[in-house]
Amino acid sequence: MKKLFPALAVAVVFATPCAHAQFAKPEDAAKYRQSVMFVMQTHLGTVAAMAQGRIPFDAKVAADSAAVVELLSKHPWMGFTPGSDKVSNTRAKPEIWNEPGKFKEEGDKMQAEAAKLGAAAKSGNLDAIKSAVGNVGGACKSCHDSFRSRS
Amino acid sequence: MKKLFPALAVAVVFATPCAHAQFAKPEDAAKYRQSVMFVMQTHLGTVAAMAQGRIPFDAKVAADSAAVVELLSKHPWMGFTPGSDKVSNTRAKPEIWNEPGKFKEEGDKMQAEAAKLGAAAKSGNLDAIKSAVGNVGGACKSCHDSFRSRS
Repeated sequence: MKKLFPALAVAVVFATPCAHAQFAKPEDAAKYRQSVMFVMQTHLGTVAAMAQGRIPFDAKVAADSAAVVELLSKHPWMGFTPGSDKVSNTRAKPEIWNEPGKFKEEGDKMQAEAAKLGAAAKSGNLDAIKSAVGNVGGACKSCHDSFRSRS
Repeated sequence: MKKLFPALAVAVVFATPCAHAQFAKPEDAAKYRQSVMFVMQTHLGTVAAMAQGRIPFDAKVAADSAAVVELLSKHPWMGFTPGSDKVSNTRAKPEIWNEPGKFKEEGDKMQAEAAKLGAAAKSGNLDAIKSAVGNVGGACKSCHDSFRSRS
């Protein structure tokens, strides 16, 4: 199946809770996953800035931002639809569709770390947040290193 | 204050939970709010398609999608930063910054309807979902009619 229908394999592997979304065209699917990632990145950046002391720590803001990261970590996957690797403005590498098992492993890791960040931020413990935000960032980087082109 | 510092007034009115986010430039703020809206639109579309019988009703998918709409409804506001009405690719009308009270009223209404949709979808009652999704759509339209240009 992997060789014959890699795109379908991704779709099956990532049968997420929101897999029914209807994308009229591949560009919409790419725009969706990029939007999810950008919102996640923005909110992770807020928590990271607090963890690094670049902005004052605000427990409520950190928890609210981490909640966005945690929830959205479950959702970009449905945007990797068959054919959406061919749109003009994507950095998604063909390996996403050719190595769905490895891609899922990376995605699962990121979701697990995002859930831990959500829990840490709810606790309000800055040390726990510092550790968790680093692990989410590491999971993002690991996946991007393998599955996102540099330009 | 409204006349002298309309943009500041918006920032104060929409002191959201994630107001600490650091946007390096106005384009990032616009991209952020557009990303939030597109993800919301996608997930609202999924629930609406079920409500209208265009795709099969799946209570879990509906609840998960409505949860995204509900959470993200709290967040686009911080993207309406001072100066981000001047970026090239925005349909945001100057009235957002010139009539912050009215804009906040529309935003509050949308958030309230999104929360009701989240509750309806959690209940799994399709009739309740149908009603709630229509009200969210109505709140979106009402705000867009006043504050988003047509092209």
